Amino acid sequence: MPLKLRERVYIRDLLEKGVIGNEYTVAGWVDTVRVHGGLVFVVVRDRTGKMQLVVKRNISREAWEHARKLAPESVVAARGRLVESKAALGGRELQVYELEVLNKADPLPIDIYAPDKTTLAKRLDWRFLDLRNPRNQLIMRIAAEVARAAREWFVENGFIEIFTPKIVGAATEGGAEVFSIVYFDKPAFLAQSPQLYKQMGVIAGLEKVFEIGPAFRAEPHHTTRHLTEYTSIDLEMGFIDSYEDVMDIVEAVIRHVISSVLSRYRSEIKEYFPNAITEPPKEIPRITIREAYKLLEAAGTPVEWGEDLSSEAERKLGEIVEREYGSYLVFVTEYPWAVRPFYTMRKSDEPDWTYSFDLLMRGLEIATGGQREHRYDVLVKQLEEKGLNPRNFEWYLAMFRYGAPPHGGAGIGLERVVMQLLGLGNIREARMLPRDPERLVP
Amino acid sequence: MPLKLRERVYIRDLLEKGVIGNEYTVAGWVDTVRVHGGLVFVVVRDRTGKMQLVVKRNISREAWEHARKLAPESVVAARGRLVESKAALGGRELQVYELEVLNKADPLPIDIYAPDKTTLAKRLDWRFLDLRNPRNQLIMRIAAEVARAAREWFVENGFIEIFTPKIVGAATEGGAEVFSIVYFDKPAFLAQSPQLYKQMGVIAGLEKVFEIGPAFRAEPHHTTRHLTEYTSIDLEMGFIDSYEDVMDIVEAVIRHVISSVLSRYRSEIKEYFPNAITEPPKEIPRITIREAYKLLEAAGTPVEWGEDLSSEAERKLGEIVEREYGSYLVFVTEYPWAVRPFYTMRKSDEPDWTYSFDLLMRGLEIATGGQREHRYDVLVKQLEEKGLNPRNFEWYLAMFRYGAPPHGGAGIGLERVVMQLLGLGNIREARMLPRDPERLVP
Repeated sequence: MPLKLRERVYIRDLLEKGVIGNEYTVAGWVDTVRVHGGLVFVVVRDRTGKMQLVVKRNISREAWEHARKLAPESVVAARGRLVESKAALGGRELQVYELEVLNKADPLPIDIYAPDKTTLAKRLDWRFLDLRNPRNQLIMRIAAEVARAAREWFVENGFIEIFTPKIVGAATEGGAEVFSIVYFDKPAFLAQSPQLYKQMGVIAGLEKVFEIGPAFRAEPHHTTRHLTEYTSIDLEMGFIDSYEDVMDIVEAVIRHVISSVLSRYRSEIKEYFPNAITEPPKEIPRITIREAYKLLEAAGTPVEWGEDLSSEAERKLGEIVEREYGSYLVFVTEYPWAVRPFYTMRKSDEPDWTYSFDLLMRGLEIATGGQREHRYDVLVKQLEEKGLNPRNFEWYLAMFRYGAPPHGGAGIGLERVVMQLLGLGNIREARMLPRDPERLVP
Repeated sequence: MPLKLRERVYIRDLLEKGVIGNEYTVAGWVDTVRVHGGLVFVVVRDRTGKMQLVVKRNISREAWEHARKLAPESVVAARGRLVESKAALGGRELQVYELEVLNKADPLPIDIYAPDKTTLAKRLDWRFLDLRNPRNQLIMRIAAEVARAAREWFVENGFIEIFTPKIVGAATEGGAEVFSIVYFDKPAFLAQSPQLYKQMGVIAGLEKVFEIGPAFRAEPHHTTRHLTEYTSIDLEMGFIDSYEDVMDIVEAVIRHVISSVLSRYRSEIKEYFPNAITEPPKEIPRITIREAYKLLEAAGTPVEWGEDLSSEAERKLGEIVEREYGSYLVFVTEYPWAVRPFYTMRKSDEPDWTYSFDLLMRGLEIATGGQREHRYDVLVKQLEEKGLNPRNFEWYLAMFRYGAPPHGGAGIGLERVVMQLLGLGNIREARMLPRDPERLVP
C-alpha cells in the first residue's frame, strides 16, 4: 500500500505544531543522507523547510534499505512518529517506519547549495534545480507577493482588471523594437505594452483599469537590468486633474507592495539578502528632471540639458537623493518632449517638457507614466511631430473623437521591483525563466 | 477655474448616500440631452450608473449654453446641488451651476444601446463605444471577477503564482498549431499553454503553482467558442495520490469562482442575462468517457468508441447530465490515450485509457487536466509513441531525472467560463479585444 500523500503534513507545521508521539506523513526532496551502520539520517526538504528522518534497520529493514541508497534530490514520502531530538534541526525528528521513494535522482549537474560555483547562465539552464535552493525559491515567492499585493491594492481601490491582446496588428508605440509574428497570412507583432489598450479601457467607460501581464521588447540589450519578456504592472485612470494624481496612485501601490512583502517575508529576506530594503518607503520626493540635471551637475556628473537620463545618471541620482532626502525612491518628472512617446501630454506653458514621470528605486527606473494627450487635434499633431503616420493609428485616434476623459497611467516593471527590493545583481534572478537575446530555452 | 475632478463623486454613491441640499461634482459621459427652452436635462453616465443633471439658463447662462449643445457621449463634469425629484432616475437630480465639457463627441458610428442593430464584428471594431453599453461593460467586470476569485482561492490554498515565458524555443505540445516568431536571428514560438513550465514550477520545489495569463493557439477555427488568444487559468500541484486530487481542486476553484461572481453581481446578471446560471454548482458528477459513450448511444447520438467527444457530443452530453444529475457541470474522465498529449499518465491497468479529465459546463469544455507522467523511462516511451522526437524535449525530460514528484494539474479557459456562466452566444463577447484568424485590429 503506497503512503497516502493526502495525509502529508508540511514540515514547518510539523516542527512548529506537531504533537510529540503522534504519527505523521512527510514528503519532499532528499537534502542529505548520513549512514551510520544500522541507522540512516535523512534530511528531507519541502517548500516550507527541512527536517531529519531517522531510519533504523531494526524498525524497518525495508525503509533502511531504501534510505541508505538515497541519492540527493530524490523524492520521498515517509511515515513515522514525531520525537524530540536535541541534535536535529528544529529540535524534532521523525522516527520512520515506512519510506517510499517516489522518484530517484541521478547525480546532479549543478550544486544547488553552492550557486557561486556555477555561472548564472548554467544555473538558468538547470533552473528547476537552481530553484530548489531556498534563497532562489524565495525570490519567486516574493515576485508572486508583489503581484498579489499590487492587485489587492487595485481591486480595493476600484481598478478593474482587463485582459488586453498580446498579438497586435501594429507596433504600438511606433518603435522598431518589436517582435514580429506570422499571424496566419498577416504580419503581426507582440505587444510592447498594453498602453493603447489600457487607454481604451478607460475611454470605454471602465474608467480605472489595471493589468499584470507579459510585455515584450526586442531590444538587443545585454545588461543586468533588461529582459526581452517581462511582467508589466499596468494601470490607467480617467478623470484626473493632473499627472500628480497618477503619481499618487503609483506611490500608494508601491508602498503597499513593499509593505506587504516585508511584513510577510521580513525574516527570510534578512536571512538571504543582506542588501535588501528593510523599511517601506516614507513620502517619495518628486523632482523635475531639470532639478535632476542641476543635482547631477553639482555632483560633477553633468547630463546634457534636454536629454534623457542614462542608467549611469539614474544610479548617480539615486545616490544623491538617498543622501539628500533619505529616500530610496524618487519621482523624476517633466521629462523632455523629445524623449517621451507621442501620446504624452506636454506642459501647457512649456511645451518642450511633459506631464510625465519615471520612478527610480535605488537608482533604477522601475516605473514610467504620465498624463496622456486626450485632445484629438493635438494628438494628431504630436504623431506627426514624432514622424509617425496618423493613418497607422486610425483605430487609436478614433477613440479621441467620441468622448475621451482626461486620463493618465503608468507601467511598473515587476522584476525590477523585485531586483531592487532584494538588492539582486541581475534581473534574470528575478524571473523564473528569463528571456534575453541569447536565451530562449528552457 | 476648471472643476476639481478629485472631488468628483460616483453617481451610484450620490443616488444612494448623497445628502440632499449639498453640493457635489459628478463626471461622466452624456447619455441623453433634452432641451426645454431655458431648461436642459442631461442624463450623465459614469461606470456606476446614470443620473439627471438639470441646467437652467437663469442659474448659469454659460452652463446652459454648453448643455444644450452637448452631443451624446461627450465627456462632462458638473457641479451643483443635489435635490429630490420624482421625475428623475433614482428620485434625485443635480441642479447644476457649473458645467465643463472635457471632451466633445462626434456623431456616433454605432448605436450603443441597440447592439442588435449592429453586427458583432462592427461592434468589436468600435469596442470602446460598444463597452459603454452597461451590459457589455458588465461582462468585462465579470471576467475580472472570475480571475480575482480564482486567484483568491489559489493564494488561500497555498498555490504560488508563477510567470512563465510566452516566447518559447520549441512548440510545447508538439502540435502544429503554434504561432511563429522571429526572435532576433532565431526561430521561436508563442506558448500554447504554460504546461511544461508549470510542471517545472512543481518540480523546482514550489510544489503548488498557478498562473493566469495569455495562451495562443494558431487554430484556423471560425466558431463561436474559439479564440486564437485567450486567458488560461492554469494550476499544477505535486505530491498527489491520483488525478482525483486535481479534480477536487478544479471543482473547488470553479465553485468559488461562480459563487463569487453570483454573490457580487447577481442582480445585474439577472437584469442583463436571462440565460445566465443562477446558482453555484452542487457536487459535480464524474463519469468516465466510456460511460459517456453509453449515455450518448442510449440517447441516439452515438460516438465512436475510443474517439474524442465532438462539440456536438459535448453539447448533447451536457443535456443528458443536466437531466439525469441536475448538474450544469460534469467531469468526463479517463480519455483515450490516443487523443491526449504525450505527458498524460496512462491508467496502470488499462493503458489505452488515461488519468485525465475534461470539465464540461453546459455542454462545453471549460477545463482540461489530469495526472502527468513523472517517470522518465515511461515519458520517453510515450513521446516516441506519439511520433515526437525526445531530442526536442531535452530540457523537459531532464526534469524527470532529478526528483520529480507525482503531480497533475489543469487549465481552465477564462472566457469560456464567462461565456457559459452568462449564457453568451459568442466567446468574442467575453473578451475585450478578441483575436481570431481574421481579427487583429483594434
